[in-house]
Amino acid sequence: MAVSNIRYGAGVTKEVGMDLQNMGAKNVCLMTDKNLSQLPPVQMVMDSLVKNGINFKMYDNVRVEPTDRSFMEAIEFAKKGVFDAYVAVGGGSTMDTCKAANLYASSPHSDFLDYVNAPIGMGKPVSVPLKPLIAVPTTSGTGSETTGVAIFDYEHLKVKTEPLLKIPVLGIASRAIKPTLGLIDPLHTLHMPDRVVANSGFDVLCHALESYTALPYHMRSPCPSNPITRPAYQGSNPVSDIWAVHALRIVAKYLKRAVRNPDDLEARSNMHLASAFAGIGFGNAGVHLCHGMSYPISGLVKTYKAKDYNVDHPLVPHGLSVVLTSPAVFTFTAQMSPERHLETAEILGADTRTARIPDAGPILADTLRKFLFDLDVDDGLAAIGYSKADIPALVKGTLPQERVTKLAPRPQSEEDLSVLFEASMKLY
Amino acid sequence: MAVSNIRYGAGVTKEVGMDLQNMGAKNVCLMTDKNLSQLPPVQMVMDSLVKNGINFKMYDNVRVEPTDRSFMEAIEFAKKGVFDAYVAVGGGSTMDTCKAANLYASSPHSDFLDYVNAPIGMGKPVSVPLKPLIAVPTTSGTGSETTGVAIFDYEHLKVKTEPLLKIPVLGIASRAIKPTLGLIDPLHTLHMPDRVVANSGFDVLCHALESYTALPYHMRSPCPSNPITRPAYQGSNPVSDIWAVHALRIVAKYLKRAVRNPDDLEARSNMHLASAFAGIGFGNAGVHLCHGMSYPISGLVKTYKAKDYNVDHPLVPHGLSVVLTSPAVFTFTAQMSPERHLETAEILGADTRTARIPDAGPILADTLRKFLFDLDVDDGLAAIGYSKADIPALVKGTLPQERVTKLAPRPQSEEDLSVLFEASMKLY
Repeated sequence: MAVSNIRYGAGVTKEVGMDLQNMGAKNVCLMTDKNLSQLPPVQMVMDSLVKNGINFKMYDNVRVEPTDRSFMEAIEFAKKGVFDAYVAVGGGSTMDTCKAANLYASSPHSDFLDYVNAPIGMGKPVSVPLKPLIAVPTTSGTGSETTGVAIFDYEHLKVKTEPLLKIPVLGIASRAIKPTLGLIDPLHTLHMPDRVVANSGFDVLCHALESYTALPYHMRSPCPSNPITRPAYQGSNPVSDIWAVHALRIVAKYLKRAVRNPDDLEARSNMHLASAFAGIGFGNAGVHLCHGMSYPISGLVKTYKAKDYNVDHPLVPHGLSVVLTSPAVFTFTAQMSPERHLETAEILGADTRTARIPDAGPILADTLRKFLFDLDVDDGLAAIGYSKADIPALVKGTLPQERVTKLAPRPQSEEDLSVLFEASMKLY
Repeated sequence: MAVSNIRYGAGVTKEVGMDLQNMGAKNVCLMTDKNLSQLPPVQMVMDSLVKNGINFKMYDNVRVEPTDRSFMEAIEFAKKGVFDAYVAVGGGSTMDTCKAANLYASSPHSDFLDYVNAPIGMGKPVSVPLKPLIAVPTTSGTGSETTGVAIFDYEHLKVKTEPLLKIPVLGIASRAIKPTLGLIDPLHTLHMPDRVVANSGFDVLCHALESYTALPYHMRSPCPSNPITRPAYQGSNPVSDIWAVHALRIVAKYLKRAVRNPDDLEARSNMHLASAFAGIGFGNAGVHLCHGMSYPISGLVKTYKAKDYNVDHPLVPHGLSVVLTSPAVFTFTAQMSPERHLETAEILGADTRTARIPDAGPILADTLRKFLFDLDVDDGLAAIGYSKADIPALVKGTLPQERVTKLAPRPQSEEDLSVLFEASMKLY
């Protein structure tokens, strides 16, 4: 149960130059995306590097929703630069790309698939030492600043296999790629538009709910005898539980306020912290069905274009694709730990005083529906362009996600997945 | 806000050899005390080292309640051994001694006072790299397996200054000396006698209460602009709060059961975890008056001999010396954060539904008195041998503890301290 270092506070970004100096860094790689490279968070980092006399090169070609190809390009940049430290400024895509760049630049003779999850990758444990990486998140959802996970879309496979399987989202998961330090600076969250806040917040919500209801760590199999070969995602456990519950309480208290008022510094600061807290939780415990099923929902997108996102192609934002199945998923999983499901419903506002344990699933599902309705979320998969005819493809796209789906507390057949997608077509 | 790695579970001690192998260790220093060196926890560690082919030397001369002299002796051993990793098996004394040995063996040209707290030491930041240290706690109280703090009694000063000042307890505090890994193995707690469980548990209780009520981090002064020179004890903050509250909930639920039934594995396991959790909390936030005032209470002991402790001299166990002033201390501090004081009273079992905010202090104090009474704790400082005549000496012994007392939410004069000691003479 390993936890990253984080530092929290308005303006902590300005300290990054001193941190790097304290780490002895002399040649730093600053990673970000094209959008952000012109904006205040990156400017603040550059000012701090200059002020502390630290040489750096900027890589601003991070792809939002990275692929193996975009990872490779960043890795090449990192290899050429021979950097002694990294700073990632952005959302999950940037932080994950930077983790991969650090890993493969530190292990130059490795094949790309060496560290990628089985069954497609080799899932080798990382034994090379990496360079320090400081993560500065600019969204409040991914929690990637605290996790040892990097997610990408494996395009290579898209081309080679049947077109239906468009979404083989893969991961690299190792404690070794966890950032050395996360700078949680709420100043970066004040200008996020409301849908971005809502969808990022749903990612936090699902990280918390899924990690709290994940298979308990002592029931996970296999359980390798050598600690170094145990997975980063180890199932729910007494440490991850603390973070999950605490993040959930913050979401219950602050998400609506944070969505509705961009100037509510208290609410947005708390959501920025909740993102990191939920990250520490799921980074140790793992997530399960909402995440496993979300990848085909995002990947098979047809024409849906999310409001408030500055992209020129159809897009189902990650947090939205995760949360739309949550009522169905937790109805399905509740029988394995009804008390936990009821407890989370209560935290999210349900009156559970007279609740019956067997009703835990429906109670949590109703609470989630009400929560989503209050936040103007689209009415299910149908509202973002899916119909019954798409279910076989959505199921097929979920099957390769066993990296996470195997952590669901209840095993699921293709038929079960089908039922879950169907139940998620309409929410209200 | 830095957090150690911990691994929890019955039998995790047996994995220490693999962990060391994974770290590349070839020549390990195993530290413990004379008592423990013959007992199962140390045997389990040695078996695991042998099984994994790891060379080691054992140092079993750790002093319970270490001094600068006993630290020095361990440091000499460490310097001579040229070790590449350390394992500490025992309570806080052993873990703290091992941290000091690792630090000074890694920084062989430093003077002992270089890293010791001001005003007596230089309080220099640690910039040398240390060797990995694995801590295996055998008591459930100190939380030292998760903290960057090592406490000792500075005998040197005892001799040179007036005899009244017998208790200049000092500390070395740096994130750099935090153990690399803590193995939280509840098997080691099953044979602790009931007073040891109770007193260790009181240490956890006070770590949680003091860190939760400590001066908030943004009100601490000075606030060095360079992160590396900021103290390990930084005041209460959003991360330490989570750990403090959670540890307190466990204490409320499990301490009485753990004291009363040595075979209650669930209760003792939970207290072993609570000790680590509270450690993560106070290791980031700090403690304040109960701890600051405890050092003279232990140090000036006359004839009191604690039940269940296998020592040949008068002894007030640390946890007892800490908890006896707690009703008075929290009555004194409540006005600075009455909501927090009321919240902790509620967690400890008080019915606060009709409570008035200004009564938070007395309510928490009454709750603590009831808690201590139920656990057969001695009736205040008078019951362990102190009288009104001792108060000036107790106050004098508290003054040098500004390392912690400055983190109290309310400044305190000598007169205030006097009143606090007097109010702690009798509890019930």
